[in-house]
Amino acid sequence: MKVGFIGLGNMGVGMASNLVKAGHEVTAYNRTPGRDEALVAAGAKRAESVGIACRGEAVVTMLADDRAVEAVTFGEDGICARLPKGALHISSSTISVAMAERLTKAHEAAGQSFVSAPVFGRPAAAAAAKLFVVAAGSPDSITRAMPILDAFGQKTFVVSDTPKAASLVKLGGNFLLGAMIESLGEAMALAEKGGVDRHAFLDVMTSTLFDVPVYRSYGGLIADRNFSQATFTATLGAKDIGLALAAGDALKAPLPLASLLRDRFLTLFASGGADLDWCSLGALAARDAGIQD
Amino acid sequence: MKVGFIGLGNMGVGMASNLVKAGHEVTAYNRTPGRDEALVAAGAKRAESVGIACRGEAVVTMLADDRAVEAVTFGEDGICARLPKGALHISSSTISVAMAERLTKAHEAAGQSFVSAPVFGRPAAAAAAKLFVVAAGSPDSITRAMPILDAFGQKTFVVSDTPKAASLVKLGGNFLLGAMIESLGEAMALAEKGGVDRHAFLDVMTSTLFDVPVYRSYGGLIADRNFSQATFTATLGAKDIGLALAAGDALKAPLPLASLLRDRFLTLFASGGADLDWCSLGALAARDAGIQD
Amino acid sequence: MKVGFIGLGNMGVGMASNLVKAGHEVTAYNRTPGRDEALVAAGAKRAESVGIACRGEAVVTMLADDRAVEAVTFGEDGICARLPKGALHISSSTISVAMAERLTKAHEAAGQSFVSAPVFGRPAAAAAAKLFVVAAGSPDSITRAMPILDAFGQKTFVVSDTPKAASLVKLGGNFLLGAMIESLGEAMALAEKGGVDRHAFLDVMTSTLFDVPVYRSYGGLIADRNFSQATFTATLGAKDIGLALAAGDALKAPLPLASLLRDRFLTLFASGGADLDWCSLGALAARDAGIQD
Amino acid sequence: MKVGFIGLGNMGVGMASNLVKAGHEVTAYNRTPGRDEALVAAGAKRAESVGIACRGEAVVTMLADDRAVEAVTFGEDGICARLPKGALHISSSTISVAMAERLTKAHEAAGQSFVSAPVFGRPAAAAAAKLFVVAAGSPDSITRAMPILDAFGQKTFVVSDTPKAASLVKLGGNFLLGAMIESLGEAMALAEKGGVDRHAFLDVMTSTLFDVPVYRSYGGLIADRNFSQATFTATLGAKDIGLALAAGDALKAPLPLASLLRDRFLTLFASGGADLDWCSLGALAARDAGIQD
Repeated sequence: MKVGFIGLGNMGVGMASNLVKAGHEVTAYNRTPGRDEALVAAGAKRAESVGIACRGEAVVTMLADDRAVEAVTFGEDGICARLPKGALHISSSTISVAMAERLTKAHEAAGQSFVSAPVFGRPAAAAAAKLFVVAAGSPDSITRAMPILDAFGQKTFVVSDTPKAASLVKLGGNFLLGAMIESLGEAMALAEKGGVDRHAFLDVMTSTLFDVPVYRSYGGLIADRNFSQATFTATLGAKDIGLALAAGDALKAPLPLASLLRDRFLTLFASGGADLDWCSLGALAARDAGIQD
Repeated sequence: MKVGFIGLGNMGVGMASNLVKAGHEVTAYNRTPGRDEALVAAGAKRAESVGIACRGEAVVTMLADDRAVEAVTFGEDGICARLPKGALHISSSTISVAMAERLTKAHEAAGQSFVSAPVFGRPAAAAAAKLFVVAAGSPDSITRAMPILDAFGQKTFVVSDTPKAASLVKLGGNFLLGAMIESLGEAMALAEKGGVDRHAFLDVMTSTLFDVPVYRSYGGLIADRNFSQATFTATLGAKDIGLALAAGDALKAPLPLASLLRDRFLTLFASGGADLDWCSLGALAARDAGIQD
Repeated sequence: MKVGFIGLGNMGVGMASNLVKAGHEVTAYNRTPGRDEALVAAGAKRAESVGIACRGEAVVTMLADDRAVEAVTFGEDGICARLPKGALHISSSTISVAMAERLTKAHEAAGQSFVSAPVFGRPAAAAAAKLFVVAAGSPDSITRAMPILDAFGQKTFVVSDTPKAASLVKLGGNFLLGAMIESLGEAMALAEKGGVDRHAFLDVMTSTLFDVPVYRSYGGLIADRNFSQATFTATLGAKDIGLALAAGDALKAPLPLASLLRDRFLTLFASGGADLDWCSLGALAARDAGIQD
Repeated sequence: MKVGFIGLGNMGVGMASNLVKAGHEVTAYNRTPGRDEALVAAGAKRAESVGIACRGEAVVTMLADDRAVEAVTFGEDGICARLPKGALHISSSTISVAMAERLTKAHEAAGQSFVSAPVFGRPAAAAAAKLFVVAAGSPDSITRAMPILDAFGQKTFVVSDTPKAASLVKLGGNFLLGAMIESLGEAMALAEKGGVDRHAFLDVMTSTLFDVPVYRSYGGLIADRNFSQATFTATLGAKDIGLALAAGDALKAPLPLASLLRDRFLTLFASGGADLDWCSLGALAARDAGIQD
């Protein structure tokens, strides 16, 4: 397929490369130039504008937040204005439920199709085509999106025919990760104050009940206090928890654990931690317990 | 070895059987008679009193709470009074850190050894010798306990030479499970109010980030609202979260997520849920969100 | 002074009347007609548009929320476009800190002055000129606003020369009220489950430590479960707590008690309580405790 | 009346003096000697033991906690053993609901009467006979206690014929104070980060909605960061919030705001604040918000 790709950040560059590898004809655009050399070398074309990336059967966006998606979608040279009728916009960014609804309506009004298809996985998984994709959209648009989505990851889950549902699942997943971080942080702080090495505690947990990579990797970062090489910053984590809470607000679903995470992020930011890995949230319980690292 | 076993509940009966299978000479006691027929048939002797169960090299206790352990340990016919000098008390019950400290001192004063060795796993795992054992005690007493502990489970983790450390690890693990229950409950409530089937949400999560039995089994009970066949009641769950909080109190370690769980349990109890499976905690978020089951 | 008044709700109608009584020449506008008969009878003129209300030295807005203030301030017939250069916009609505900043800049750019002057008090206090006014703005604009502000209430507090500061103080005050409601609700639920009549409990508190009208009136509504005659709805209360949290977000100030209130409001809304008095928040603790009213 | 008085701390010494002034024949006992000189000079007798203080018609206890009350009540020379049949034990200490129940039963079994009569007020109020007394007990014992209780304070509230009810009301009152501290702390932190002086914020609040001494005095300590001259320490505050939570536990009444206070106290203790005034809780929100004092 002829596919545009907008957003060549840590995640996007790997995803676009895998589209090329899967045989798609890729035209890639990034707001700031210069992140696309390897991609172009691999066979992708460089787009000088959003509009140029919108000349194919589909365009994928992989951007940081609602605002960035809004910037490339609306306006004179935006996706809505430039994408041919009948073509497909696949949003893999983690966006708000409200933005997913807005995009659904705007593309419908413009005679285009919209699929929300956020992904689970860090940049290394994006590069290795090991992402998990959660997709929602009309059956027809999902069918058309599949050759693209399958190039991104190891499995695609179709959860609904309403695009916003995929955003909600993605936000729910990130909330579960945030809850895991907080719970590991509290448990390790308790263990440590009681004389149990926090690595030893984590080792028991990940060898028994929680024998799964996310507990091991996130827990390891917390136990190591290794937060400076962020692959997902606290700022991005706070954004997603905020989006989950905003969805809860709109849907009248109280989420007290998400509220706790929200307050934790603010405490972290107030002490200068915005650019740290979001696992740094897991060190606040130790700080409150008076543990000096 | 010649081993006494006190406490033939759902967990204890399986553990004692596995001691017999492993070739130990087991004398078993339960406060209320009649739970030991299969065990006796398999080769264990029946003890008419705590004291009779204390005539070997070691005695294991597997009881519901601090109070039950206190009842069999102290007093005229208690373990402290009856166990020979040099012999070993292995406590596999989930007890408070304070009780672990008290037992450590009492047995030391009586010239006996004490190992705290709580276990992770439900009754089926106890019967199948698939428990995970977390042990702490002096190196010598751990060495002597090993042939017993290894009969209980698939792996024994020695975390410290101070017995209370094992209790703390066990409480930390149960707290992580409680946090998981709450987070799954909130995430499913949010998903459901947004039109995503809660089973579908859970399926995505346990196929991707959280591909591990505890998320699948606990999450499944929550999604099914299947709480009446409790293998671990809300009352027992609340007890353990309370013990974690009590440890946090003593150690000056605030645990806000544990406090949230504590309040949730009280809400559950106030509406009559004490005997439900502790996963029922995970349905409260849905109730607060106005979801009618 | 020649003063425009926009927003003739429960609060605005009393405030505008008091401007008339104080000798000001008032031109009043309301989006939906028909709430101004008494006011017109008392001597106010009726404005058919926002622009007509903007022909004096000052215009006061007293509206429900940011959105309503935005609607009358911006756009072709908005205050910014219609108010003479040098004239004054006094916002007595409870608005977000962000909106206060936006209004400050917009009026500055248009050569006008802006004072934020939210008020404390219920409609009866507005009618009786017993409000408390919290004002912030440049010294010159405050001086010019004073004859208007003094007509509204019993005292005007000037807290800063930056308008947003007054909004922040107002939001902080409403947060204190919300915290009072929650604390009274929890304390009464505890007392009641322990056999102490909740009115008796409240009576002790308001006769001793908390001998002040807000505890007596709000506490009385909670004890009476009298929530249907809302003078301030849960929807409005939730809006203000949300604005306090948004300010905390922007300023990096975690507010865990405000987060608790936020979750409580969602629980209330999910069970249909949006139009009840916001004191109904104080009955949720009783509900969680299993108290049947 | 001939009255014993046990516990001559900051509060007790003033209360006992007022008994003398009211014409009672007072025999006073304190565990550690030497705090009774002024009292003896004023006309009280010094008791060398608990038993000697129990020779009158009534004995009052004013002690730090459950443990201290237990120590003087039970045992060979305790109040239960020494107080004449028909005589009265008035407990003015802030004790647990469980301890109030235990004392009720023990005195009933010993043929004595028991009144729980905790007080509101700081030491200066105790010295000035300005306390508020909350009393509960059988009508007959209340009648007999009245001449004593009225000597302590400006008003006595009889809330129930079950002694524990008075303890519950006292704990509820202290919880309301704790909630006030937390809410003031959060609101001031928010105001301050937004550029509003915290004293100015407090002044608006205590001149309007919260025009009552407790808001002024507690708020003033928080705004001044004046915590070292504790008249009520964080340790005592945490004890009372803990007793409220324990009562909630027993009664199945979740108290999320009290749980928040509990966690705050632990954070305070972990950073060395146990002996500060309990208002220091109100500075933690500022700390979390990154405010440097």
